[in-house]
Amino acid sequence: MGQPIESACRPESACAEPVDVAIIGAGFAGLTAARALVSAGLRVTVLEARDRVGGRIHTRHAQDGTPIDVGGQWVGPGQDKVLALAEELGVETFPSFEEGENLCLHNGRLMRFTGLLPPHEPAALAEVEATFQALDALAQTVDAETPWTSPNAAALDSESFDAWIIRTATSDEARFWMRFLARSVLASEARELSLLHVLFYIKAAGGLAALISMGGGAQERRFSLGAQHLAERLADTVRPHLRLDTPVAALAQDGDGVTITTATGDTVRARHAIVTLPPALAARLRYSPPLPGTRDHLAQRMPMGACIKVQCLYPTPFWREEGLSGMAISEDGPVSLIYDNSPAAGTPGILVAFIEGDEAKEWTARTPAERQSAITQSLVRLFGPRAADMREYIELSWLEEEYARGGYAGVMVPGAWTSLGATLRQPTGRIHWAGTETASRWLGYMDGAIRSGERAAAEILAAR
Amino acid sequence: MGQPIESACRPESACAEPVDVAIIGAGFAGLTAARALVSAGLRVTVLEARDRVGGRIHTRHAQDGTPIDVGGQWVGPGQDKVLALAEELGVETFPSFEEGENLCLHNGRLMRFTGLLPPHEPAALAEVEATFQALDALAQTVDAETPWTSPNAAALDSESFDAWIIRTATSDEARFWMRFLARSVLASEARELSLLHVLFYIKAAGGLAALISMGGGAQERRFSLGAQHLAERLADTVRPHLRLDTPVAALAQDGDGVTITTATGDTVRARHAIVTLPPALAARLRYSPPLPGTRDHLAQRMPMGACIKVQCLYPTPFWREEGLSGMAISEDGPVSLIYDNSPAAGTPGILVAFIEGDEAKEWTARTPAERQSAITQSLVRLFGPRAADMREYIELSWLEEEYARGGYAGVMVPGAWTSLGATLRQPTGRIHWAGTETASRWLGYMDGAIRSGERAAAEILAAR
Repeated sequence: MGQPIESACRPESACAEPVDVAIIGAGFAGLTAARALVSAGLRVTVLEARDRVGGRIHTRHAQDGTPIDVGGQWVGPGQDKVLALAEELGVETFPSFEEGENLCLHNGRLMRFTGLLPPHEPAALAEVEATFQALDALAQTVDAETPWTSPNAAALDSESFDAWIIRTATSDEARFWMRFLARSVLASEARELSLLHVLFYIKAAGGLAALISMGGGAQERRFSLGAQHLAERLADTVRPHLRLDTPVAALAQDGDGVTITTATGDTVRARHAIVTLPPALAARLRYSPPLPGTRDHLAQRMPMGACIKVQCLYPTPFWREEGLSGMAISEDGPVSLIYDNSPAAGTPGILVAFIEGDEAKEWTARTPAERQSAITQSLVRLFGPRAADMREYIELSWLEEEYARGGYAGVMVPGAWTSLGATLRQPTGRIHWAGTETASRWLGYMDGAIRSGERAAAEILAAR
Repeated sequence: MGQPIESACRPESACAEPVDVAIIGAGFAGLTAARALVSAGLRVTVLEARDRVGGRIHTRHAQDGTPIDVGGQWVGPGQDKVLALAEELGVETFPSFEEGENLCLHNGRLMRFTGLLPPHEPAALAEVEATFQALDALAQTVDAETPWTSPNAAALDSESFDAWIIRTATSDEARFWMRFLARSVLASEARELSLLHVLFYIKAAGGLAALISMGGGAQERRFSLGAQHLAERLADTVRPHLRLDTPVAALAQDGDGVTITTATGDTVRARHAIVTLPPALAARLRYSPPLPGTRDHLAQRMPMGACIKVQCLYPTPFWREEGLSGMAISEDGPVSLIYDNSPAAGTPGILVAFIEGDEAKEWTARTPAERQSAITQSLVRLFGPRAADMREYIELSWLEEEYARGGYAGVMVPGAWTSLGATLRQPTGRIHWAGTETASRWLGYMDGAIRSGERAAAEILAAR
């Protein structure tokens, strides 16, 4: 169960004595890798830029102490790794609220509905459903381990998801819902995404229904104390090896190991390194020797999605009294999707609203007051005047977050998977790559991050 | 003509005394800005990561001393700024060689031809020409100052150049030449490029003919001593203010100025900064406060083109004896385009070969010996067995070049111009952005770089 590393390397200072593995990033990928490697008896240091663990999982607290997940928050069936971890560490989850009717605002017209989709004319509904099914079926043809070897990969990677939408769906409705899918699931515009990437993402989640459903899907459950609580409990298993507030600036590798230099000039020497940052951010570190051109060009073609997550707190979840679930779809912007995000006890009432894709790129440049005003107006249009009596407003634009620079994850532009995808998980000498973007199952989710950390740790154990 | 900055700030050491403007990058953009600002009496420091000036303009020398441009090399009519600079500084140019017939290798079949295009069936030729004309006409509708305000900008930016090609051209020939255009002019695959970006690039050069022609176009003339010679003469005008071998790691700005920290921990304090790096690389520096999300997301959506430039030296330009110009198009890869690149005197004979787009991404991962072997085979197929008697082989994969990470320039993926383009030239507080990617005329060329440097210098002079 590990050597007495505490005496060799004090977390608060530069680490003079070499470690076996230095891990950059204390999100779920980095913490999982650290735990596996410490368990195997290796000396490990985890270097985290932020003053907290969790990465894109981040729980703040409302004035009354209610945990508020400003980052990732949901888990659901099929996400076996994260569910097992929560059970093992005794971290409690509870079902997302989904009783009552949903709302949809379309051209100023408000509709109540049940199920995933608001009411449509029968012909339009049939095409919407056929398009979803066509996408789902196409996704099943993709190889989630090596998407670039899928049948017809070159063609699937040559066009954008938007080009496929235009080619496949003729009605405005079907096109709208496909573009809405790109925004709500990948926080991206359909025109930015390689079709192959969208298919891969669906395949990695086990299908479209698993991805978009609340009950039975990726949004089924939440963490009672917030998702970061799970990261903290995981961090507890490797706490002595963890250095917070330590942004890394550079990695220099030679035949024997890797020297990591922090932004303040401290150095850590390790036999191997694991970089868990999203590829776009990983490429911003300085490498000696420089990263291979293929790895660097992949990183240049994997931009982060764009999302702003907003939470509006009310004394009670007043919408429930009116038979509403709190789930709402707004086609009139800037908010696209809203859910009831109240704690298990039911108070305070919390609505979580997502601004995604181009709307996020536009609204991230406004002031918090401007955003709050626009979002309040959206909520009032949907939920009536009581939505204006907000008692607290908590937001995070992930575009502004220095160490994530977007979310939920990095996405591949057309051509990237087939020309460069093979380098995504391939170690660069003694530097191994982890992070949810490198997962072949549930990439973009905590579950994928955990799987990537396990894989990177296994690579290093196998290489020794 | 500037203050005695030499005494205030020695180039070889950390600069204790503040300057008015710190410029990151000593390519044509940075050197032009420096010269303009020094002329206006400002104290300037130029920080250059490499051991030379010129940026993506780089001249090496063959064993016999012949200058070999491993980076940008051509200038042509309409590039008024670079031509005027060469004349002013007494830097000599000479016309590119274009006598004789060109070659085209297609499915193993070799054809001789004159003009821009190899022989086609009349119907195919008509469609190729019509497609070129359609593209050129569409480019004329674009606003080169603010492409995102062009008529129909949202639609033009929503699809890839490849989607437009498929929609517009029905024959294999027309599609091939359009994709070839993307590779040879933008070093990118058509599927990677926003259609709006391609149109903007054409408009910024004054039309398609100006872009692709040798005589009368962007490839009309070369520099007798290599293109870096012009950069060196320009650097001579600001030599005391220049610090080579000084990679910048971080910029921190406050109300009064900007503190620049180099990779080795030196600091420079300046009232303003100009960053001339391509946006993708500029975003890799650490900024305090962090860059606005919009600027960062733009940088994530502007990957560098991919090119490997190869030069093969022979005792004489033997192809000229056979009535060949040296210009050749190979459809069989990995080389796409070849030119006679011999010096004005005619000896040694030099063929320059370009590997671009996906071929560059593939071949950059091979060894130099593998590349030389494949390229030699290409040249033998085109020019016969004498092409095997290479006396020297000089190559540079710009994907591997740490401080460029590709070439010829950064390109916009679909959606980037219309959602984020307004931030491309917009100063971020006291940080101003230059570099050829920010030019509205001849972006991607030396001329655009010079124009961008003039603009950034003017912004700072206006802000004082």
